[in-house]
Amino acid sequence: MTSDEIRDQVWEMGKQARAAAHALTKLTTDQKNEILLAMAEGVLAQEADIIAANKKDLAAADDLGLTDAMKDRLRLDPDRIHTMAYGIRDVAELHDPTGEILKDWTRPNGIQFLKKRTPIGTIGIIYESRPNVTADAAVLCFKTGNATILRGGKEAIHSNRAIARALDEGGKKAGLPDHSIQLIPFTDRESVQHLCEMDTYLDLIIPRGGAGLIEAVVGMARMPVIKHYDGICHVFVDKDADLDMAEAITVNSKCQKPSVCNALETLLIHREVAADFAPQIAQNLAAKNVELRGDEEFQKLAGVDGIIPAGESDWTTEYLDYILAVKVVDDLDAAIAHINHYGSHHSDCIVTNNETAAEKFQLEVDSACVFWNASTRFSDGAEFGFGAEIGISTDKLHARGPMALEELCSYKYLLKGSGQVR
Amino acid sequence: MTSDEIRDQVWEMGKQARAAAHALTKLTTDQKNEILLAMAEGVLAQEADIIAANKKDLAAADDLGLTDAMKDRLRLDPDRIHTMAYGIRDVAELHDPTGEILKDWTRPNGIQFLKKRTPIGTIGIIYESRPNVTADAAVLCFKTGNATILRGGKEAIHSNRAIARALDEGGKKAGLPDHSIQLIPFTDRESVQHLCEMDTYLDLIIPRGGAGLIEAVVGMARMPVIKHYDGICHVFVDKDADLDMAEAITVNSKCQKPSVCNALETLLIHREVAADFAPQIAQNLAAKNVELRGDEEFQKLAGVDGIIPAGESDWTTEYLDYILAVKVVDDLDAAIAHINHYGSHHSDCIVTNNETAAEKFQLEVDSACVFWNASTRFSDGAEFGFGAEIGISTDKLHARGPMALEELCSYKYLLKGSGQVR
Repeated sequence: MTSDEIRDQVWEMGKQARAAAHALTKLTTDQKNEILLAMAEGVLAQEADIIAANKKDLAAADDLGLTDAMKDRLRLDPDRIHTMAYGIRDVAELHDPTGEILKDWTRPNGIQFLKKRTPIGTIGIIYESRPNVTADAAVLCFKTGNATILRGGKEAIHSNRAIARALDEGGKKAGLPDHSIQLIPFTDRESVQHLCEMDTYLDLIIPRGGAGLIEAVVGMARMPVIKHYDGICHVFVDKDADLDMAEAITVNSKCQKPSVCNALETLLIHREVAADFAPQIAQNLAAKNVELRGDEEFQKLAGVDGIIPAGESDWTTEYLDYILAVKVVDDLDAAIAHINHYGSHHSDCIVTNNETAAEKFQLEVDSACVFWNASTRFSDGAEFGFGAEIGISTDKLHARGPMALEELCSYKYLLKGSGQVR
Repeated sequence: MTSDEIRDQVWEMGKQARAAAHALTKLTTDQKNEILLAMAEGVLAQEADIIAANKKDLAAADDLGLTDAMKDRLRLDPDRIHTMAYGIRDVAELHDPTGEILKDWTRPNGIQFLKKRTPIGTIGIIYESRPNVTADAAVLCFKTGNATILRGGKEAIHSNRAIARALDEGGKKAGLPDHSIQLIPFTDRESVQHLCEMDTYLDLIIPRGGAGLIEAVVGMARMPVIKHYDGICHVFVDKDADLDMAEAITVNSKCQKPSVCNALETLLIHREVAADFAPQIAQNLAAKNVELRGDEEFQKLAGVDGIIPAGESDWTTEYLDYILAVKVVDDLDAAIAHINHYGSHHSDCIVTNNETAAEKFQLEVDSACVFWNASTRFSDGAEFGFGAEIGISTDKLHARGPMALEELCSYKYLLKGSGQVR
């Protein structure tokens, strides 16, 4: 394809998405749910095609230099396809937030105001490797009445095409409007740039992938971007902490699933309890083969071998692995300052029995989720009771923290008068 | 100043703003209100200095090529300075939305969740000509606990500096944290670019000015931007309209204050009532010296002389003047399609006595404010009862329509456990 052809096709998809968004505003919740169930049927009906397409992607994986972990994320089997389909059925069960009246009031001049929750309109999703994002993202956006343009990575292009086709063909049987879910069928890099410039047709872009992808989109996009950056999450063990609770929370936050954004990366210990807590946690984590990278104080106090001296970069690294940076801090203010300076404003925890300290921490730590005496691993849409999430936003505008159906909505004001003029 | 000095100074202001934002989280509502009253005193106390500074700007206005209208917006006199000070006192009276609990719930595992309204953090305001924006924007951001960096235009630089100094010196007497309100003291264009790139230090940029300024900021900014674009506002006179009401709403929306974004720019008339309504509205507006630009049908039906044939560009022009584009449309669907295609998603109105038509219009018109039987001039924070607004957002993310104190806030989740782990 020539550059002109790529640009023309992406812009044409934008125009179609805008038209689809208008058609979607007219669907009732029941109609949308029927379409979702039909999409789930579509995925199940096309299981063989999806697996065949996925085999093509897997066959090309080595040439593309995919690691084993990446290949595992790419791989689809009947179990994973069933999970995908059941996931779509679950979304049909969720409450539809669109159409809700968020506020209503009447002014002295008699004009009645409604603030009504609406779809955003059109959403671009740019993502890497995992083909299940094709279904997960598209159905959440559809449930909230939004049209999507999906742009997946080249390593999963065959799988993505097969899944998008299954959703579209399945959904159409129940009345899915044309072009509600569109996948860019090629993976030329310029297509990302066109999406980012197409602010007449796209109301929002959500990049899902590594920091490199997000940075590139942020640099190019003319429309709002909701970012799901790293989770540099902290646990701060206060001087008034129950140290056994602190140990349990630290171990769980670090070890239960180290590969995710809400896993612990830096442990901060109040100087007054460091002599007790440092050896306690060091022994526990060393036994679990967690690599420790400590500041001088922690190295001295921990009483275990093999602690690597922590450098400045350790305070800003999302290891996503069995590695933990540890620092002894002077007091609560120093802990807050460290977290606000080095953290990623995602999820941070204080362990303390001191209510005043906890309140100060929760007020001053500038993060989406601020925990008091619970594992950072609870920073998750399902654990919040949101049913489904499209990611954990590290932004402060529109959506912060777990981003679920409500955050895939906008609102508008409806005003009703009887001829009022100013 | 060298480019390096400009960059260093802007980035240093960013760092200071982030520190100020942290200090602001610790202020109570009462403390903030006392500071606001002290800022108002500061403005009154420095009235002479502000007027002297403004005289310098006015003396340079001709050399900068300012029109009479721009000079009028630039001019400060004792009355306008008193209005500015009273405006600050009014903001002290407004309800403080920060700290509000937006939602609270407890999960089966016992973890308690609070969704709490918080300041956004740091906000950059980039604006042109009117020096009163310096005070208006800064105090709304301050009321909601945000630190601001203001960057005004060169035509008002002396006035802006004097006002910012008055706010800062006045506020400090009541405990305003250092660097809460910073004005970039020079107007080199590169300072805008540095602000736009400084996403570590600025959480949001709000450009206030013409489309050129907004476009430039949107192109450069790495952080969220809330845009206040043009208002291409429509009135649609449905076949079931009360034509006298339609006349009153059209005339008011167009003529009461044509220079503002919620003024009417395009009138759409349903074909079935065009033969009656076209001459009625044409005579009224011609008598008020409103220039009419009509499609062929309207030219034929209006029965007045001097109607200019409307071209494609008339449907996308914000005249801000005594000019009105008029088109006869086939039906409600055609009106909705015209508005969604050519409009700016700001404020649009249907005049009708038909509830079904009104509901369809309000559902399908994709605009921030959708009116039924009332003048578009009510699209305004004060008319909504919001007390004050920082603008009318034409964005769909975070803030849509009149952007008031609540929209200058973010939120965060506070989770309280008793040692829960996953």
